[in-house]
Amino acid sequence: MTLSIEEQRISFGRELIEAGWLIPTLADGVNGLGDPAEAVVEGLQAQASRIAKQQNYPALNTLRFPPVNSEQLLRRTDYVASFPQLMGLVSTFAGERKEHAALLAAAEAGESWQQQLEPSAFALIPAVCHPLYAHLEGRTVDGECYQLTGDCFRNEPSEDPFRMVAFRMREYVVLGSEAQARQHRDRWIELGEEMLSALGLEIVVESANDPFFGRAGRLLASGQREAKLKYELLTEVFPGHPTAIASGNWHQDHFGANFSITAADGSVAHSGCFGFGLERIMLALVARHGLELKDWPVPVRALLGL
Amino acid sequence: MTLSIEEQRISFGRELIEAGWLIPTLADGVNGLGDPAEAVVEGLQAQASRIAKQQNYPALNTLRFPPVNSEQLLRRTDYVASFPQLMGLVSTFAGERKEHAALLAAAEAGESWQQQLEPSAFALIPAVCHPLYAHLEGRTVDGECYQLTGDCFRNEPSEDPFRMVAFRMREYVVLGSEAQARQHRDRWIELGEEMLSALGLEIVVESANDPFFGRAGRLLASGQREAKLKYELLTEVFPGHPTAIASGNWHQDHFGANFSITAADGSVAHSGCFGFGLERIMLALVARHGLELKDWPVPVRALLGL
Repeated sequence: MTLSIEEQRISFGRELIEAGWLIPTLADGVNGLGDPAEAVVEGLQAQASRIAKQQNYPALNTLRFPPVNSEQLLRRTDYVASFPQLMGLVSTFAGERKEHAALLAAAEAGESWQQQLEPSAFALIPAVCHPLYAHLEGRTVDGECYQLTGDCFRNEPSEDPFRMVAFRMREYVVLGSEAQARQHRDRWIELGEEMLSALGLEIVVESANDPFFGRAGRLLASGQREAKLKYELLTEVFPGHPTAIASGNWHQDHFGANFSITAADGSVAHSGCFGFGLERIMLALVARHGLELKDWPVPVRALLGL
Repeated sequence: MTLSIEEQRISFGRELIEAGWLIPTLADGVNGLGDPAEAVVEGLQAQASRIAKQQNYPALNTLRFPPVNSEQLLRRTDYVASFPQLMGLVSTFAGERKEHAALLAAAEAGESWQQQLEPSAFALIPAVCHPLYAHLEGRTVDGECYQLTGDCFRNEPSEDPFRMVAFRMREYVVLGSEAQARQHRDRWIELGEEMLSALGLEIVVESANDPFFGRAGRLLASGQREAKLKYELLTEVFPGHPTAIASGNWHQDHFGANFSITAADGSVAHSGCFGFGLERIMLALVARHGLELKDWPVPVRALLGL
């Protein structure tokens, strides 16, 4: 009996849960990580850090932003315009005793008690590099590299373990001239491919596009693909069905213009980034090397410090 | 001229920003961490991990839960009843092209565009141990220890750098008999005090209570304090004004009952936890040792691996 690709994905998710790699939560599409999974994710971060340190950046800055930021950030990065279907905004409770009693009554009656909350100015970040652009607002940049790790939220609940609502990215971002931004992205596509290949994954690099919203979005997506702004590193977790586990992006001067960031020559700064999808890579490694971490190839465990 | 305690807190926050320890974001009360701050937070985690490994637990499990979970978790932990003022729920966009146009128009007009979103089933976690109780639902426990690190959200925006809306906790949680839960909490209060003292902080341990909501909440709070369920580890960052930087809690059988978790003898499981407020400890260390990480005492840097 042949399983469909959807059945294969769900079946793999169940194996991961049974073996303690993934921990289901009360929320659809949100998984915790068990002991071996978190150890692999930590190993991936350490390995990426080592590779980054070997490069010759004018500066390598490790910054850390929490998963919550402002609704302004979604507007000013054009995320509201381009990916409204993926956003998460935060509502809070500002009532007194009477409103609290009503809230609790609705919750206990099984009604949608969240209707009684008020929108706040907080929003979840969809990409770990977004807060960086706001941080650099009004500054001049010249090829400095930023190493960022953090949790992202994208509203696309799924039973596919490769499509989590909440997941971590490790990103390397350079801002500066067009050449600095593009070269950074291109260099890291090579570095990322080398790193993932050394871990036993067969990688294909392909031009790609983001899931822009709506009809106008389809034009943006095809423009992005034609201009070769985005490349994905894919691996065939399920034969015939490549899964993206990392990507390199050249944003042109999109963020530089929106946040008034200037290159050394006075022009609007360009930005380029490379992002590792940490949980996706970990899952691809399990698919490749099996559910028993101690049976993974010695060189792979050595690279991950396991 | 003497500064008020509020002015001292805000002034310290400005110094931290100028020196690159904290990075303001577009959201009130949300800070990113600069290079030295993140290095200290990583050092604190590594040091806590080393201490945990030296203890004799039947098992020490490192699990990792993302910052997003289900609204059910807020209800089932009684957070909606006890701390509604601190909650964060997630709203998302489920519209088509027409609704998107309206959303963008409101955003561009500077109106509260988030009013047009719909409540989702997602919520932010206020404490990193909450997803663990749901994970253990229906199981039997016998003193196993869980090591958890993650981002928490509590809606209390402030200019005080010690009161962040989004912050990280490292928690050690044991579930089992009443004795196992209490002894774990008490042991970690000692271990935590030793660890923080070795880093140069003067620590006082005091019985405390959580900020339960409303008039009924004040009774819960005073009951919690009288029953000595919660202890805080405080340090005088500002003379005469102790700040809590870690805490030990015995939840009695609150979570065991709500999630049907059973102790080895068949009774309802008790839980105890100890949590380090990672950013608060880092800030207390800066207040103690200064803004230049390289000038911190050699033994402190050695303990943090810096």
